[in-house]
Amino acid sequence: MTLHQPDLTALPADLAALLRGVAAAPPAFGKFPGLALLPRALPLAPGAAEQTVAALAAQYAAAIEDRAAIPGRLAALRAELQRQDLAGFVVPLTDEYQSEYVPLRAQRLSWLTGFTGSAGIAIVLRDRAGIWSDGRYTLQLEQQVDGSLCERRHISDDPPADWLKTALKPGDRLACDAWLHTEDGLKKLEAACRSAGATLVTADRNLVDIVWTDQPPPPLSPVIVQDDALAGRDAAGKRGQIAAAVQARGAAAVVLTLPESIAWLLNIRGSDVPHTPLPLSMAILHADAAVDLFIDGRKLGDEVRRHLGAAVRLQAPEAFAAALDALGTAKQTVQVDPATSGAALLHRLEAAGATLLRAEDPCLLPKACKTDAELDGSRAAHRRDGAAVSRFLAWLDAEAPKGHVDEIAAAGKLESFRRLSNELRDLSFTTISGSGPNGAIVHYRVTPQTARLLEPGNLYLVDSGGQYPDGTTDITRTVFIGDGQPAPEMRDRFTRVLKGHIALARARFPEGTSGQQLDALARHCLWEAGLDYDHGTGHGVGSYLSVHEGPQRIAKLGSAVPLKPGMIVSNEPGYYKTGAYGIRIENLVAVRVETEKAENGRRWLGFETLTRAPIDRRLIDLTLLTPQEVGWIDAYHALVWQEIAPQVDDDTRAWLKQATAPLGA
Amino acid sequence: MTLHQPDLTALPADLAALLRGVAAAPPAFGKFPGLALLPRALPLAPGAAEQTVAALAAQYAAAIEDRAAIPGRLAALRAELQRQDLAGFVVPLTDEYQSEYVPLRAQRLSWLTGFTGSAGIAIVLRDRAGIWSDGRYTLQLEQQVDGSLCERRHISDDPPADWLKTALKPGDRLACDAWLHTEDGLKKLEAACRSAGATLVTADRNLVDIVWTDQPPPPLSPVIVQDDALAGRDAAGKRGQIAAAVQARGAAAVVLTLPESIAWLLNIRGSDVPHTPLPLSMAILHADAAVDLFIDGRKLGDEVRRHLGAAVRLQAPEAFAAALDALGTAKQTVQVDPATSGAALLHRLEAAGATLLRAEDPCLLPKACKTDAELDGSRAAHRRDGAAVSRFLAWLDAEAPKGHVDEIAAAGKLESFRRLSNELRDLSFTTISGSGPNGAIVHYRVTPQTARLLEPGNLYLVDSGGQYPDGTTDITRTVFIGDGQPAPEMRDRFTRVLKGHIALARARFPEGTSGQQLDALARHCLWEAGLDYDHGTGHGVGSYLSVHEGPQRIAKLGSAVPLKPGMIVSNEPGYYKTGAYGIRIENLVAVRVETEKAENGRRWLGFETLTRAPIDRRLIDLTLLTPQEVGWIDAYHALVWQEIAPQVDDDTRAWLKQATAPLGA
Repeated sequence: MTLHQPDLTALPADLAALLRGVAAAPPAFGKFPGLALLPRALPLAPGAAEQTVAALAAQYAAAIEDRAAIPGRLAALRAELQRQDLAGFVVPLTDEYQSEYVPLRAQRLSWLTGFTGSAGIAIVLRDRAGIWSDGRYTLQLEQQVDGSLCERRHISDDPPADWLKTALKPGDRLACDAWLHTEDGLKKLEAACRSAGATLVTADRNLVDIVWTDQPPPPLSPVIVQDDALAGRDAAGKRGQIAAAVQARGAAAVVLTLPESIAWLLNIRGSDVPHTPLPLSMAILHADAAVDLFIDGRKLGDEVRRHLGAAVRLQAPEAFAAALDALGTAKQTVQVDPATSGAALLHRLEAAGATLLRAEDPCLLPKACKTDAELDGSRAAHRRDGAAVSRFLAWLDAEAPKGHVDEIAAAGKLESFRRLSNELRDLSFTTISGSGPNGAIVHYRVTPQTARLLEPGNLYLVDSGGQYPDGTTDITRTVFIGDGQPAPEMRDRFTRVLKGHIALARARFPEGTSGQQLDALARHCLWEAGLDYDHGTGHGVGSYLSVHEGPQRIAKLGSAVPLKPGMIVSNEPGYYKTGAYGIRIENLVAVRVETEKAENGRRWLGFETLTRAPIDRRLIDLTLLTPQEVGWIDAYHALVWQEIAPQVDDDTRAWLKQATAPLGA
Repeated sequence: MTLHQPDLTALPADLAALLRGVAAAPPAFGKFPGLALLPRALPLAPGAAEQTVAALAAQYAAAIEDRAAIPGRLAALRAELQRQDLAGFVVPLTDEYQSEYVPLRAQRLSWLTGFTGSAGIAIVLRDRAGIWSDGRYTLQLEQQVDGSLCERRHISDDPPADWLKTALKPGDRLACDAWLHTEDGLKKLEAACRSAGATLVTADRNLVDIVWTDQPPPPLSPVIVQDDALAGRDAAGKRGQIAAAVQARGAAAVVLTLPESIAWLLNIRGSDVPHTPLPLSMAILHADAAVDLFIDGRKLGDEVRRHLGAAVRLQAPEAFAAALDALGTAKQTVQVDPATSGAALLHRLEAAGATLLRAEDPCLLPKACKTDAELDGSRAAHRRDGAAVSRFLAWLDAEAPKGHVDEIAAAGKLESFRRLSNELRDLSFTTISGSGPNGAIVHYRVTPQTARLLEPGNLYLVDSGGQYPDGTTDITRTVFIGDGQPAPEMRDRFTRVLKGHIALARARFPEGTSGQQLDALARHCLWEAGLDYDHGTGHGVGSYLSVHEGPQRIAKLGSAVPLKPGMIVSNEPGYYKTGAYGIRIENLVAVRVETEKAENGRRWLGFETLTRAPIDRRLIDLTLLTPQEVGWIDAYHALVWQEIAPQVDDDTRAWLKQATAPLGA
């Protein structure tokens, strides 16, 4: 496809800028949400705005993906290094919001190196460059990054700090954009520089932005209201609660930089980044519960302005730095979270005279503890999502054994079933669709080059989720392809993973127990056989928000934060045999109170499983299960049948009947 | 009993001092180990030395226990406060070695307040005094401490820092002995003083020592050699290993203050404190593997001097401070463990000019990982100990149902069976012997006032251990008293505790797993029923050393230190019903390699159970057990039968036969 740059010169400048911003926000299912921001009356032919935005977006993406341009980009960056008398510049993957997904504008690492993985950092010096990622991306680094331009290294085996010690010379000045690094991150870079006799300096402006002449603008998508009825609490109440907590700590204000926290606090959502319904903004919540919200006003329609009300003062993003300075000038004590804020924020506040109170983002814990309305919403979303997944699994069982379905087609079919619901706003992440050996790649992303057929006799792993206004879903099923018998080893491994899943699902524990204490319950039965999986067992999940959230986490080195009623976490043990197959069984669960007052006076907690879709009975080795485990599966399947059967077509219902039949049957 | 002060005035001064020191060390089974330090030819009648030492020891103990003297002691301390223009003095329980057990000389808290619990701190001001301990000792505080003299408070509900904030006045100077507090501990006291406008000052000499006119001298007991054959390594090799580690960190020396570390490092043992075979001393290990050992030379005979060799330079304890100063004067970098050393040590080094390298005591981890010889020794000690426990259990089963055995008699009988072995050096701690409701008191210490009869129909919990030259043991058994049937609830609870014990005993896990990850396996089955226990699941155990050692620990908030092959830990889940009964099942286990190279290339670890004694079959509810659990118990009992039967008398053997019969039988 040949792309021509759309000609925006004939348009009024503000309209052209609007179209560029709309195109810089991600489309959901091919549609750009920002189109809703355009004025009713446009000096354009019908459909022209849509076409222009699509063409602009394609152009942005193509430019970022243009690997032939990379040597030129590196040269331009090095010229800028020379101009500023710098030895090098650090390019992390994240943006100033420390988000999981970043908009096109912030895809500096990909633009500069070609690497598109979800974790990485590059350092470009005058004569050398290096890029680091973790073991998940070793292969991808080799495929995407030219080793002669940029040395490809493992982030923990061969960390940047070690490389810097030898690559830098005494007197060298290494620069970074302090908005993109946490305080701790900067300290590590500083120590590495110091040990080479060099110094770390803070660039006034990101050097990549200086040389990236066609860098997309910040994304423009409409901010929408998250109904109080779905949130279960109004924003005024949340502002009051957090403000009181901040005041109790002795601070005059808290600076919020996590888009999820701001979205939760103000009951708003948006579409500025892929898969997570976030508007990008910064906010200062004052002890009087008023908020200064630094956001592009073009994103806000009348409805959301009314919703935010007078206590939320809208400010231009450019006014943020001056507002920090004002807090400092007034000698205020300001709460900030050093783990989730750019170091530049802390530096700016301190330099202006503020006293910093370093503490965890005060929205994290209340956001994690869902309201009854959010839990009800999640249950509804999971019933809806479960119907789509069940339809997909029924289709898969009929079609895949014929040997013509590949991983891309399967993922597409699953998406199409989900889209049958008008409630679906987006997928909650890119579907992981892995057949046979591809299922063993934990963070596999199917591409036309890697896509395998779902071959009879193989296992197929599909990890996917949806964003619905009432809830975010995340489910993994592993199914056997074909009519024959799965290999005994597959059934053994699948059943051990399932036993771990059930142990966690059935766990009861005293209030105060953390996810890291429970992790071993999910691994116990695999460990017994000398097997394990190299990922966490459970992550927090937001309410129509991020599919990964804290502060709770179920993992080996998980979080010591106690699990609290209302928290939603995933329950996803797995097993991966490199080159052969992968198994993961993932449901979302909500922490609930099981006993208000157990024998010792404490509350006893447990999990309510939210996800509704059959677990492949063909892969279960009954001889490995206890009667209690069989009972759990049968009860779960009965629930799936009861809630999903009424929602699906006859064919799916017939399939579901046998897929949810009791195990003994 | 009336005690007369023995008249030592007629003796040579050095002999009198020797006798006093010997009497200040704890006797084991009534004998004072220090008697071996007396010269062959004594200006005393035969037996007179023994009598004098016993009388002195009784006098020391009686004086400390003399509660009538407490008001006078407090008054003397307050007079000293006035003389030094101080507002108060802090009296912690621990001594300068931060040991679990302290010698008579260091029992300042007990001398000053009457409190004999194992955790506590007092603060004496001019007009008020307070004493703090934890929930285990609330009752004991009330019994032992006069509330009108000293306010009795809970260490966490009502901490000393809060009390100080109101009890101190601006300008006040609160003093402490900085040898008895860690750096962190001092910081907390300092902050509390500061918030009251007061200051914390360091006393040149402990104020209690100034006013305690008849304070016992430091204990004198012989240092003995721990055979290389038992240790499995010679001391020179250990010195070399630790010195290399210290050097690798860039330090010129490490100061060792934990008596266990010094005993391990030099392959020596002693008898300066109860139940743990430790000589008290301080040591400096230099990077060249030479050691300065600061110890009373009277404790060392020719054999141990030869064993220590020229690389271990013997110094008087009084020379320690000057040696620290010398390290400072030479501007050395000195490694110290701030968590286990008195703050005074760190202050002294820094004041003298040393650079401190704060790091964990480098002996802790290698000491915890037992050698093959130590593991063999532990196995032998457990076989020996298991025979004594089995004889006791057989005796108990015959006698207790008659209703005439009380908790003191039972503990005494168990001790007598252990003492039948000539290898027993001491108990490894004071036996916990609790019948019925007393069994529910986790750290119960039987006294004539509290001792209950072992009544038919009740449970009896006995937690005890022995110190043998080849190993330290620690075992808890809970048995049913009587011929009838235990109550169903008792059997249910006992079986759940047992299932937790078995889950841990059978656990397999990848290298790198820590005790805090495994803890939930032991609680899972109790949690399921809304039950739990308020103590850790497992503590490290030394090799003829402390019955409690780190750095590993299996507990809710346990240690993140990975379990390593050779580590010995206890496996002791429990359940306690206040006012009714207590259950605990404790075996010691050793971490071992189960698979050298599991599927993912990592080593897989598990536990070898070391303890050998039957678990009461009458308390097991078979319907709650899986076939694997039944298999574990039967295999364990078969091992007990096989190893213990040959060691015991016919009656015990007949009892053992049925006590170790397969569960189905």
